[in-house]
Parts: sequence; structure tokens; C-alpha cells
Amino acid sequence: MRLSIVNPNSTRSMTDAIALAARQAAARGTEILAYQNDAGPVSIEGHVDGVLAVPGLLHALSIAERDGADAHIIACFDDTGLEAARSVLTGPVIGIGEAAARMASLVARRFGVITTLAVSVPILEDNLVRAGLASLCTGVRASELPVLALEDDPKAADARISDEIAKAISEDGAEAIVLGCAGMAAFAERLSERHGVPVVEGVSAAVKLMEGAVSLGLKTSKRGGYARPRPKERGFAEPESAPIAEAGS
Amino acid sequence: MRLSIVNPNSTRSMTDAIALAARQAAARGTEILAYQNDAGPVSIEGHVDGVLAVPGLLHALSIAERDGADAHIIACFDDTGLEAARSVLTGPVIGIGEAAARMASLVARRFGVITTLAVSVPILEDNLVRAGLASLCTGVRASELPVLALEDDPKAADARISDEIAKAISEDGAEAIVLGCAGMAAFAERLSERHGVPVVEGVSAAVKLMEGAVSLGLKTSKRGGYARPRPKERGFAEPESAPIAEAGS
Amino acid sequence: MRLSIVNPNSTRSMTDAIALAARQAAARGTEILAYQNDAGPVSIEGHVDGVLAVPGLLHALSIAERDGADAHIIACFDDTGLEAARSVLTGPVIGIGEAAARMASLVARRFGVITTLAVSVPILEDNLVRAGLASLCTGVRASELPVLALEDDPKAADARISDEIAKAISEDGAEAIVLGCAGMAAFAERLSERHGVPVVEGVSAAVKLMEGAVSLGLKTSKRGGYARPRPKERGFAEPESAPIAEAGS
Amino acid sequence: MRLSIVNPNSTRSMTDAIALAARQAAARGTEILAYQNDAGPVSIEGHVDGVLAVPGLLHALSIAERDGADAHIIACFDDTGLEAARSVLTGPVIGIGEAAARMASLVARRFGVITTLAVSVPILEDNLVRAGLASLCTGVRASELPVLALEDDPKAADARISDEIAKAISEDGAEAIVLGCAGMAAFAERLSERHGVPVVEGVSAAVKLMEGAVSLGLKTSKRGGYARPRPKERGFAEPESAPIAEAGS
Amino acid sequence: MRLSIVNPNSTRSMTDAIALAARQAAARGTEILAYQNDAGPVSIEGHVDGVLAVPGLLHALSIAERDGADAHIIACFDDTGLEAARSVLTGPVIGIGEAAARMASLVARRFGVITTLAVSVPILEDNLVRAGLASLCTGVRASELPVLALEDDPKAADARISDEIAKAISEDGAEAIVLGCAGMAAFAERLSERHGVPVVEGVSAAVKLMEGAVSLGLKTSKRGGYARPRPKERGFAEPESAPIAEAGS
Amino acid sequence: MRLSIVNPNSTRSMTDAIALAARQAAARGTEILAYQNDAGPVSIEGHVDGVLAVPGLLHALSIAERDGADAHIIACFDDTGLEAARSVLTGPVIGIGEAAARMASLVARRFGVITTLAVSVPILEDNLVRAGLASLCTGVRASELPVLALEDDPKAADARISDEIAKAISEDGAEAIVLGCAGMAAFAERLSERHGVPVVEGVSAAVKLMEGAVSLGLKTSKRGGYARPRPKERGFAEPESAPIAEAGS
Repeated sequence: MRLSIVNPNSTRSMTDAIALAARQAAARGTEILAYQNDAGPVSIEGHVDGVLAVPGLLHALSIAERDGADAHIIACFDDTGLEAARSVLTGPVIGIGEAAARMASLVARRFGVITTLAVSVPILEDNLVRAGLASLCTGVRASELPVLALEDDPKAADARISDEIAKAISEDGAEAIVLGCAGMAAFAERLSERHGVPVVEGVSAAVKLMEGAVSLGLKTSKRGGYARPRPKERGFAEPESAPIAEAGS
Repeated sequence: MRLSIVNPNSTRSMTDAIALAARQAAARGTEILAYQNDAGPVSIEGHVDGVLAVPGLLHALSIAERDGADAHIIACFDDTGLEAARSVLTGPVIGIGEAAARMASLVARRFGVITTLAVSVPILEDNLVRAGLASLCTGVRASELPVLALEDDPKAADARISDEIAKAISEDGAEAIVLGCAGMAAFAERLSERHGVPVVEGVSAAVKLMEGAVSLGLKTSKRGGYARPRPKERGFAEPESAPIAEAGS
Repeated sequence: MRLSIVNPNSTRSMTDAIALAARQAAARGTEILAYQNDAGPVSIEGHVDGVLAVPGLLHALSIAERDGADAHIIACFDDTGLEAARSVLTGPVIGIGEAAARMASLVARRFGVITTLAVSVPILEDNLVRAGLASLCTGVRASELPVLALEDDPKAADARISDEIAKAISEDGAEAIVLGCAGMAAFAERLSERHGVPVVEGVSAAVKLMEGAVSLGLKTSKRGGYARPRPKERGFAEPESAPIAEAGS
Repeated sequence: MRLSIVNPNSTRSMTDAIALAARQAAARGTEILAYQNDAGPVSIEGHVDGVLAVPGLLHALSIAERDGADAHIIACFDDTGLEAARSVLTGPVIGIGEAAARMASLVARRFGVITTLAVSVPILEDNLVRAGLASLCTGVRASELPVLALEDDPKAADARISDEIAKAISEDGAEAIVLGCAGMAAFAERLSERHGVPVVEGVSAAVKLMEGAVSLGLKTSKRGGYARPRPKERGFAEPESAPIAEAGS
Repeated sequence: MRLSIVNPNSTRSMTDAIALAARQAAARGTEILAYQNDAGPVSIEGHVDGVLAVPGLLHALSIAERDGADAHIIACFDDTGLEAARSVLTGPVIGIGEAAARMASLVARRFGVITTLAVSVPILEDNLVRAGLASLCTGVRASELPVLALEDDPKAADARISDEIAKAISEDGAEAIVLGCAGMAAFAERLSERHGVPVVEGVSAAVKLMEGAVSLGLKTSKRGGYARPRPKERGFAEPESAPIAEAGS
Repeated sequence: MRLSIVNPNSTRSMTDAIALAARQAAARGTEILAYQNDAGPVSIEGHVDGVLAVPGLLHALSIAERDGADAHIIACFDDTGLEAARSVLTGPVIGIGEAAARMASLVARRFGVITTLAVSVPILEDNLVRAGLASLCTGVRASELPVLALEDDPKAADARISDEIAKAISEDGAEAIVLGCAGMAAFAERLSERHGVPVVEGVSAAVKLMEGAVSLGLKTSKRGGYARPRPKERGFAEPESAPIAEAGS
């Protein structure tokens, strides 16, 4: 099967890291098509970055569908544009935020979320409410590391995140941890060993959930919440810089 | 004071109707600056229309702020882009959906919402949850009238909406009605008389709430949920077709 | 238009302060009719004060309606008697507690409340639940200043309230502050500047919401929750000491 | 032990019926002190009746405490003045509405409530939320029988209530029924047999809960929600017509 | 009347203590039939102990019914097997956890729970949600005393529990305390005096609630949630070691 | 990898059907170990069947772990014994009820559940609340087909289920359907085509989720809710009739 994964921001190093993480998680026989939204912000931190990324993201997803992707992953922990994407696409779609939380809920009664900046906390809280996951979450903590700092000084980032995990466990009662940023993927296994609880990273969680949904033959329901948009003039020009399709698995 | 009102869709007749409704509602001394998002869909029905309208909407709002608007109204019942708008603007911002619901809650214990298409129902439900208004709402009913049909055959539209209001009152227990579309403004007073309950229309409700907030000297909090976005490259070109600034009140 | 504001307690200095705050907030053309419930307690702190104030409060409101008031404000942060008042009066009615919280929700995703005594906290919490505002509130904090102490030593009161605001912001995540007592009106602007978040005071918020509701032609719904009481013998003698009607604006 | 039961309205035939029901429910050794609030409305239907009954009700309860009552029952299904009563009294206090719902929750997963008039529905709904019982209730249905009609034509009343019980079971999924008016006590047993589900009546339920609480030596907590009011001038004259103390069991 | 009380674990000293507490709480005329589940774990701490105790517990309860018990008490704070017991028995059934929480809610607006081990906290939290009591609970605190340690060193246990009560009151806002283990019964009165709030113990609370329910003639509803199981082969052998019926009161 | 699937009831034809469905869903390289609880009821309908099945179920699961299973599936839609199983096992565990609901939530905003008997509805409702999925569910409908009738007359069963699906969609607003019984697996694809919405069956959903969790290296958290039970005497004899291990995939 083919899964598309779209980085809604325009930072190439993140796209590469995301594509790598997705391919490492993919089962034999799953081809990962990775895309980058060159018409988006360099990182997504807060509401404004999010909404400005969506038009390019939807464009990239429509290319992915034309390229034969059976299901789709939005590689931003804010699940940017998830509902619009579910409305236009036929195959299942998930964001890495919802994916990580759903996976964590399989192995712990309550999970905590560690994200980058405080500005993302309300977005993640609202997403958890909408996805029916809020009652399972012990809280969203911000490490106050900007997304791109994760790449610049991974050692300091690791220490900062580890600190917040310790607090989520001891103060909030978290029994598992969801790492709330695509850039945190590389840290998961080590952090799990250090803290003795499951640590779930979103890209790999999303790959597994989409592989499962495709295997079951599921497609996004077009009744109600994700009904296909009616044809109309949308006054929306295709973004000039075409998203980049990376080579397959 | 100056209030801006932005029609996030590109249909001129709706912009005119919205501007008129806003000016009729405005207090003496309130100047209404009306804008239209020419880079948006012809109407906003569902998630996809909504997200595609936001970049142009934010652009129009930034022009409104430069034009001296003290507060801002997003003239779409879906409250499209409300949170992003609150993050970038200094003055208070409201959408006509949230405005109508908040006003209705002042004169009734429970209100019902009548909107256009079923595709909007989940969006409105999620907005009510996020705004803390869900427990006051007896339900969102769809008249299944497309937004633009309201203009085409107002008589049939009036009958259809009146039917849904009757059901909202008798079956759902609504004590007041919120009209869930900018295009329904002209119907409010007549429907209120016919059904014997308050009928609240969003444009006028929004004007009153923003006049009140500006009088109190309130500005949008920049701590937490609506923190100002950090400066960065957002790869987002200004929409080609500039929003239209209409003449003042 | 004419707005009535009723101080449900019998302390004249508070009535004067409330009337002054209301007149300062009122738009040109809004006449403020201020009343005092001489048949009530000297201050309202807890359930017992509240219920004993209601008969006199309702009496004062009925005089206000006869005096031509288009809408009504209950000047107690507990929103004492709000639902009974909505049942007997034709025009819109609001309490300053609900008013401040609704206004704060326009300029912040989450607000905190600072009230006087711990005995009021459960009352305010229950009111927020009933008004559908609980999910937007980060918590109600008590300054442990009795209502009348606000007048006696305003400097100490200011310091005490400022302390609680700081905690509401840093510990609870409040993005705006609601000042939970009529007597705190004079502090709002200074506190907002000091703490860098919107600080909303209830009297002025209520004036603006009632001006808006009257402008929109709204009246309290008489279906369901606020249905007019059936005529019957209520065995309730008019309070001996007539409420005092103050001169208009 | 001694239990007081206060009819907050001034209709003697109801007081007599309530006293009788309480005495029939009381254990050997429990003395029932029955009081009537002559300073209240002839019946309590809606918010206004409720708030006007409270001062006289509190007065009657204070006499009951002086008369040696160990615990107290407010014999109105709206639980009128319950929180104020808990604040002033030392012994436990319950209203017959909360009592019936708590008893029903011991013998059914979900219960339905049948009350008299629609105007009481919102009050009962709010009480259930406050008491943490809302999630166990399948709905509050109004028989549209005024309180005093229960006495005038008991046969028609029985038929009307029986109809609503049938609907509560078949349409709402009620597994037990709470009879939502003091005047319905005589109907309970017959209705239970007819419908094959437990039917709980509030006066007897309240007697049992208060007997239990007194046996356990419990007194109302004076920390937090029901703290004793501070001494102050309350400008509240004792009602002229003294409540009537009936002879004990 | 006859009440059965079943200790779902196999520790005789606990059965004796439970029977004693029940008999001390019982009214004159109430006979207590005490049973012990010899086919269960020595103590119930967590999910596994709970589910392994249920078959023997149900067996003991069926014997109790044959012995003429009118109502039944499950003497484990986890309310182990409560719903299955309600399905098979005709008379009312309660667990001591639900009983204590319901009694506490009669004398305080919010109660806190002190239990033994952290492993019980999620079970108690889920029970409170299911019983509609979660919104009244300020939190469940674990003393980290294993159930049997309560007997081994009562003085240390008392100190440890007292510490947690102090925190529940000062940090969580508890206004009453529910003691979350059958073994804590002996501590209740002393702790109430020390901390100045009601302290409710489950065995005595359960006795009072079941006495009340039996007096009212209530039986468990067999519609919906607690419908009687259909006859079928259940492949379940009676436990070899018969539960022990103790002598009556 | 190896997944165990345990039929908690003793009906061999159901075990065979479940094992077949699991093997059809399994990825290449996934071995399915199927077990039957011979010490359980012939079918699980309601609380009593559920609790009596658990000891044998836990025994079967412990054998599965010894047999090298990496993750485990409880093949009863009630998720019987799920929390106890998570406490004793190292690998991830899921019930087919939670699995189907979580999968449905990936492809629809709201799903409806169709189960067999009304007696299961409260159990499923409570499970959805505990799993944080209740807000996504439009309702649980009972087809009133006993579990074993599904095998006896599949044609009538199909018609009955199809009827309820139609109502769930048109009356409740379901956008996807969860088939609430292991025996319904064979119906899913045909029903999805007929009704035009995703229809999710639990056995296959569980296989995919467990494959995903094992691939990610996740194990059940042993902090908090699912902590491993302390060693102790549990008085619980191994069931006499050993569970049957079926041949692998």
C-alpha cells in the first residue's frame, strides 16, 4: 500500500527526518510518499502558522491522492487542517497528534503530552476535546523549545524534555508520554527506557494506524462531519511553489 | 469608534447585505469599515471553504487594523479563522456565530441554532464546545438551504427556516433562536414575532458586543491562547486580488 | 434608553460607587436608574445573605420596571436572584458576575476570577456551570477580603488582589481576570496595566451588554426557564423600607 | 431522634399530607416535627415562588432547630433554599428532590423524573447538575398538572402521571421513576406495581436518609460550601405569621 | 429486617471487624448476616484481586438471599462486582464505596477520598464517574498503606491517614472525608474530631442506606442496566470452600 | 509477531469464527494464537456472564503469554476483563469493543454502535465513557438478537441489524457503524456497501491495532492504572478444563 506523509511546513531537514521516521516505521510492502509544503511557514507554532499552512497542505495532499496514496498523514502535532483534509480525500487521514494520543491510550489509562511552545498548548487541548481524548490526558506541558531548536541542540532539548516527562509522571499522574512534535521522534525510545513508561511518537504511530485502516478497507465517511465539499468557485490559486514529491520507500 | 466587518467569502451581494446590517445596528458614533475577501470562496459551507478563506480573511483584517479599526467582526457563522485573527490583532475580534450565541444566552436559558447546510452542523457544534456554550444549546438544525439560496428565493427560505424554528421550540425545547447564517439577518424580527421567542442574528449581535468591548477599553489578551505569532518566514504571498474597503458609515 | 442597576445590599456607599461606575460606563443617551435594597443585608457574602436579599431585590426591580427601565442589572457578583428576576421582568436582566465573565470570554480563551471570601467560591462556581462558562474559567480565587474592607483600606486591598491575580496568571493559566466583587471596580484599569492582561469589572461589563441587548430589541424569553409566574397568593408583604431611587444620569 | 420537615408553602392540606407521609415513613423512635411556612406562597412553581418562600422557610427551620430537631427536610421537590439552610443549621438537611433522586440511584442505573409544571423542569435540571446526579437521569418530564390540582382530581392526576411514566420508561430508558412533587406521595406504590419499576417518593426517601445521617452522627460540614454566615445586619424582619409547629409522632 | 454483608476477601479478621461495624451501625430490629468469601484473595488491591473475588462473592450473596436477606452490602471499597450483584439479586445492593460517597454528599458540597494503595485510585475514580459522583469529589488520595497493614500497626496507619486528610482539606478543598477502605472504620470518629469535618466510613453508611431502602420497600429495578441474566450454561463450578455464615445480631 | 485472541465464552463455533476472522485480518508474518475459555458461559450477555468469564479468561491469557504472544485480544465486545488483563500482562491488550470504536473514530466524526441485547447497552456505554469515546458515539442500539441467534439464522440477523444501522444513520446522525458483537464480523463489508458508511468490525480492528502497537515496541504501562498485582494468596484454583490452544496461522 501507499501512505502519503506531508510536512505542512517548508523546512527541508524536518521533511527529511519525518520521511525517515515514517519509512523506519512502515511495514514491508508499505511505500511512503513524502511531501513538503513549500508554500507554508518554516515551522508551525500557533494558530496563525497553522491556518497559513493549510492551503498548501491541501494542495500537497491532493497531489498525494493523484499519486495513488491509500491513506494520508499530516506531519504536524497540531493536526493542522485535519478536518478539511478528511473532507476532500477518499482514503483515511490522520494527524500525528491524534495518532500518538490514540496509540498511547492503548497501553496506559492516562497519558501526558509534552509539546514545544506554550502557544501550542491550547490548540492541542482543543484537539483532544474534539477527538474525545481529553478525559484520558493528564495535561499538556510545554518544554518551551522552539521547533527548530530541537535540531540545533538535541542534547539540551533531550534534557529539557526529560525534565517535563518526569514532572508529567510525578505531578500529573501520567502513565505514558506522548511526544508532541514531529521533531522529537528520535528521542522516544531512549526516553521510554529512562522513565520506565511508554513514550509514543506521532509519525510512527500514524503510519501504523493508517496501515491498519487501509488493511481493513476503511475510507473516510462522507456523511456528516467530513462530507465532500460542493463544487464552487473558491478563488484560491494553486500555490506557486509546487510541493516536492520524494522518492518512495 | 471604528469597527471592521469582513465577509470572508467573495460574494458582493452578501458583503453589501452584511455591511448594511452592521450599519443599521451600529450606535451613533460607530463607523463600520466593511471588507470583502476576494481571495475566498463564493460562500463558506464546510471545512474546506473555511480553511481556504482564512489567508485572505487575515489579510483583510490586517488592512482593517491599519485603517484604524478598534475591533473586528468575522461575518461568517462558522467563526472562520477566529483564533488566528485574535492572535494577530490587537483589538477584540468576534465571529457572528459566537456573537449570536452569547447574546441569546442573555435572554434565554437555552437557545437553538438554525443553520443552512448539514455540513456546517459539526463545525458549529465544535465551536459551541470550544466557546463553552454547548450546554446552553438545544441543538443545531440545518435548513438545507445553501447560503446563496437565501438570496434567490427569500420567501421559500423564510418558510423553511420558520419550520425549523417551530421544531427547535417544540421538539428541542429552545427558548430563543440563533439564526446561523449571515444571510438570514433580514428575517430575524419577523420570525421573532411569529414564534414568540427572541431571534438573534449574528451581525447585529457582533456589532453590539464589539462596541461594548471597545467602550470598556478591552484588547485581546496576548498571554496563552491568543499569543502573538513569532516573526518568521511564512512562505505566504499576499492574495493577488486586494480586499475591497467600503466607504464608512 | 434606561437601564436600572440595583444594589441588593443596604450599604449606601456601595450603591453610590456602583451608580457612579455604571454612569461612567454608560453610552451617551443611556440613563442609569440606581436602586438600593434597604430590606437586604449590609453585604452579600454566602448563601444566606443572598437568599435574604432577593425579596427586596425583586421589589426594587419591579419599581425599576414601572420607572421605565428597558433592562436591568443586579449589582452583586453572585448574580443573586438572577433567574427569579428574569422570570418577572420583561426586559433583559444580567448580574455583574455573569456579565464580567461573558465579556472576558471575548478577549481571552481562559479567564480567572478573583472574589472576596471563600464562602462565595462555591456560589460562583455553580453560577459558571449554569451559565455554560465553567470550561473557560481557570479557577475562582478568594482574596479573603470582606466586601466592606475594600472600602476601608483600598491600598491593602489592592495589594492583596494583585497577589491573587499574579497567581491566577502564573499558576492557573488565566489569560484575563474577572474582578469578582462590585467594590473592586475602581481597581480594574490599574491592575490590567500592572499584569498585562485584560481585567474585567462587572458593573461596566453589564452596562455594555444590556445597552447591546436593548439596542437589538431583545426581551427575556418567556418560554421554558424564565416563564412568567402564574398569579397566586404569595403571602409576601412588601418590604417596609422602600428602595431608594437615585437621580438619573 | 427528632426530624423536622418544613412545607415551604402555606397550603395547610399539603402540610398535613406531608406530615402524614413523613410519620408513616419514620422508624419507631423517630419523632417528626412538621412546620408550615405561612409567610410563603400557596404553592411553589418556578423561580419566583421559590425565592419568596426562602426567608419564611429559614425562619421555620431555625425554630425547628430550637425545638431540638437533629436533622431537617425541606418538603419541596425544587429543594428550595437547601444551600442556605445547610449554611445556617448544624444538623444535616435535605430537600425531597435530592432525596428521591439519591434513593432511586441505589436501585436503578438510570432514573426518570416526573414533575408538575414545565416551569419547574429547568430548576430540577440545574439541581441535578449541582448534586452530581445529572448523568444518572434520563430526563425530567412535566405532567402539566399544577401542584394543587393533584389534590382536586387525584384520579385524573394519576392517569396523567402514569402516562408520563410509561413514556419515561419506553422513550427515555428510565429504569426507576422519581415522583417530582410532594403531593404525589400517595401514588407511588400503585404506580410501581403498574409499571414494574421502582417509584420513589421524596418525603419518605428524605426521612430515611436523614434517619441514617443522624444515626451516623453526621453534621453538615462548615468548611467551604456551607460555611456558617458571618454575623451582620441583614435588614430582615422575622415574618409576622409564625410557622405552625404540629404535634409529634 | 435482615441485611447481608459480604467480605469479598478471605481474611477472617477483616470479616470480623466488618461484621462488628455493621452490627454497631444497625438499628434495633435489623439483623446482620455476615459472610466471607473463602474463595477470594486475602485482600483486594487492584483490578486482578477484584475480578478474582467476584465469583465467590456472587455465590455468597446467593446464599445470603436464600437465608432471607432483604438487602445486601459488598464490603469492599472498590464496590467489587456491584453491577453483577444487582443483576442477580432481588433486594437492593450497595458497595461500601458508593455508600460512603453518597452519605458524604448529604453533609458537604465536596468530599475527598482517602484510600489505601495507588493501584485502587483509578478504580475508585471510574466508580465515582459511573455513579455520577465524580463532580462532587475533590480527589482520591492514596495513603500507600496496604489493606492488611491497617491491622498490623494501627497507630502508624492513623498518622498516615490523618496526614492525607489534612492535605485533602487544605490543598484539594475537601469539606468532608470518605475513608476508602473497610479496615479504616475504627478511625472515623476520632479523625472527624481532629480535622473538624465529617468523616464517613463505608460499612455504617451502607447499613443505613440499605435499612432505608428496605423500609421504603424498594427492590432493584430489573429493566435495563440490572436486568436479570437469562438462564444458560455458565460453565462455572461453585467454589469449593463454602462461604461462612456468621451468627446474626 | 504473535497475537493471542481469546474467546471468553465456551462456544466452539464462535471461537472458530473469531480465529478465522483474526487470521484473515492478520498481516503476513503475524501468527494468531486462538484460545477458548472452557470455564466460561456459552455466551456473554450482561454483567453476570461477564464477571464469571474473567477468571478463565485471565488463565487463558496467561497461557498465551507463556506461548509467546506479543499482544492480546479479548474477543468479546464488552471488553470483559480488559483492565485486569492489562494489569497482569506485559504486552498490549485490547478488547474488540474498544478496538472497533477507536478504528471508527479514524474515519468518521461520530459513530453509532449496534449490539445484540439491551442488557449489553449500559456496559458498552460505561466502557465508552471510560475509554474517553462517549462524546464521539451517537448511541448504542440493541438489535435484540441473542448472540447465538446470529449463527442460527444469519439472514434474519442481517435484516435486523441493517434496520438498526439505517436508524442509527438517519435518526442518530451516525457517520460510521461499529458492529457490537464478535459474531457480526461476517456482515461488515456487505453492510458498509448497502448503507454507504464505514462499518467496523472488532476482531479485525483489534488485530490491526495490536500489530501496530507491537511494531512500535509498546508495552502496557505498569505505572498507575494497570500496575502489576502484588504477589499474594488469591484463593483461586486454576479452572479444571484447560483452554484450547488452536494451531497458528
